[in-house]
Amino acid sequence: MATRVIVLNGGSSSGKSGIARCLQAALPEPWLAVGVDQFIKALPASLQASDAGIELTGDGGVKVGPEFMVLETAWMEGVAATARAGARVIIDDVFLGGAASQQRWLNALAGLDVLWVGVHCDAVVAAGREISRGDRVRGMAELQAESVHRGVAYDLEVDTTHTESLDCARTIAARIG
Amino acid sequence: MATRVIVLNGGSSSGKSGIARCLQAALPEPWLAVGVDQFIKALPASLQASDAGIELTGDGGVKVGPEFMVLETAWMEGVAATARAGARVIIDDVFLGGAASQQRWLNALAGLDVLWVGVHCDAVVAAGREISRGDRVRGMAELQAESVHRGVAYDLEVDTTHTESLDCARTIAARIG
Amino acid sequence: MATRVIVLNGGSSSGKSGIARCLQAALPEPWLAVGVDQFIKALPASLQASDAGIELTGDGGVKVGPEFMVLETAWMEGVAATARAGARVIIDDVFLGGAASQQRWLNALAGLDVLWVGVHCDAVVAAGREISRGDRVRGMAELQAESVHRGVAYDLEVDTTHTESLDCARTIAARIG
Amino acid sequence: MATRVIVLNGGSSSGKSGIARCLQAALPEPWLAVGVDQFIKALPASLQASDAGIELTGDGGVKVGPEFMVLETAWMEGVAATARAGARVIIDDVFLGGAASQQRWLNALAGLDVLWVGVHCDAVVAAGREISRGDRVRGMAELQAESVHRGVAYDLEVDTTHTESLDCARTIAARIG
Repeated sequence: MATRVIVLNGGSSSGKSGIARCLQAALPEPWLAVGVDQFIKALPASLQASDAGIELTGDGGVKVGPEFMVLETAWMEGVAATARAGARVIIDDVFLGGAASQQRWLNALAGLDVLWVGVHCDAVVAAGREISRGDRVRGMAELQAESVHRGVAYDLEVDTTHTESLDCARTIAARIG
Repeated sequence: MATRVIVLNGGSSSGKSGIARCLQAALPEPWLAVGVDQFIKALPASLQASDAGIELTGDGGVKVGPEFMVLETAWMEGVAATARAGARVIIDDVFLGGAASQQRWLNALAGLDVLWVGVHCDAVVAAGREISRGDRVRGMAELQAESVHRGVAYDLEVDTTHTESLDCARTIAARIG
Repeated sequence: MATRVIVLNGGSSSGKSGIARCLQAALPEPWLAVGVDQFIKALPASLQASDAGIELTGDGGVKVGPEFMVLETAWMEGVAATARAGARVIIDDVFLGGAASQQRWLNALAGLDVLWVGVHCDAVVAAGREISRGDRVRGMAELQAESVHRGVAYDLEVDTTHTESLDCARTIAARIG
Repeated sequence: MATRVIVLNGGSSSGKSGIARCLQAALPEPWLAVGVDQFIKALPASLQASDAGIELTGDGGVKVGPEFMVLETAWMEGVAATARAGARVIIDDVFLGGAASQQRWLNALAGLDVLWVGVHCDAVVAAGREISRGDRVRGMAELQAESVHRGVAYDLEVDTTHTESLDCARTIAARIG
């Protein structure tokens, strides 16, 4: 069975979105690139900064509430359905819950052939890239660099610390039949 | 059965996105807002300006190719699955194919209770708003103002020519149980 | 002497930027459009949310600190120099200090022929447009609707409550020799 | 005399903007970051894609016309005036004309203490980063990688091929008294 879904998991500023775009350019078939950032933008403004939704703590921490989780699960089902309907999909996510987050995707993506990719980046380097992006909230890159990979099982791991996004993408593309 | 999906159809610069955000603020439950613009951004860059994907002609026309249609159908299935999984969803679309576009959504959304809303705007006013948004490609607003509504059946129609987005949203919200 | 500078003053969500873009389209000569928003984006991230720089209070209030004021004055001198060097310039600003803000621009623009335009919008309508834009911080539109015009002297006043940006722009353009 | 202006010159996707933001974070005093991209956004939409303004050729080339040049010169005078009025300014530019572009800035910045910084990036690496940014027009990074440095004299040169933006910024910051 041909791989229909690529999941990229990594901390903020680890380079996932850049890899996703390079994968779209490197792979011969058209792939859609979707990510948790787009899901967050689809939320009501009121949930984008609230206890029930998603909240950024001053130090770069992210807290998600019950309504966020319910809607996110529904969004994950939608992404899976898009893949089942025939589209190839690259998912760009931050597993705030580590292994538990992967389990939620495993449930949603049941029956689909998925390539699980860990996107690593040294915490200090990721923190520097966060500054270079001009994000006003700082600390997220460092806090997430290790924690999002805890207990997660991968088919493939790449590291953007010393490797360009396009080269990481080529490594991943080589694994897609 | 409670309405789970609101479809807003209207031409470019008719005010759909603004109404969607006002609906999110006006409705007591959280609703996700998704739109064809996000789908287009999820496409590979190569399909965003090609015969096989989507192409803007100089005069504001939009041509979509076969690969675009295939992926869009899969995306529509995904949006429907998100609603079936329990999320309330506002869909913001431009029915380039008029009644045929509605039929595609009817197929995808089968079994869901949908409120179909036509978002009208006078062609000259929409063309002015296109200028005020600073879009480099002009003409789309005028070309689409009438054509996207051809043969489409609505539960409700609003007109942003002389009515604010928030007032249109309140009219729509009043129809949601 | 031909007018080289148009200053648009109005509260948040009153429609200044849209009028600026329509003016650029309506006027036969090329005009640059600059605004205080671009100045804020040019600040260090650290000043974009601090006592010394600019800070948004929860209710839509804006507080600017001493370092903001010093840099803003220098930026105003730069805008004036651009006009003196031969460019036609549309300035889009929010006079948080009312008449005092106008005096700062009068100092910077000394010797230039300026058209002062007040951009009004009913507070309730502006607040609705703030929602339709999806801003997460609310209240700014309402707080600023009246206060930014206090004590300010205009050559021309427009009101976007019931008039489109393009029509306001045409009224303004008719005053430019 | 203390340095008041830092000019960063490099090709598209060489990493200038990231270095500018890191410089703002690394330097103890507040610095404004301005760039030619903001100038282009200030142009009328009609000049953003025309013979008289700026035009992108299909292969990544950039052509600027006479009206662009006149307005750009006025904008450069404005940036210089901002620095003369007391603001510290980081300028992020692409010297399409090489040494001739530097001469234009030398004229505008006369009397100011300027640090001239060349931002290099290997053409192949820059082309890869162009893909990872998702730009629809490709080829600009490669075309500009060498040509923008032709005949330009620098106080300092950095290379982002194997060095992070933050590290490049620290090297530059160490040269500012």
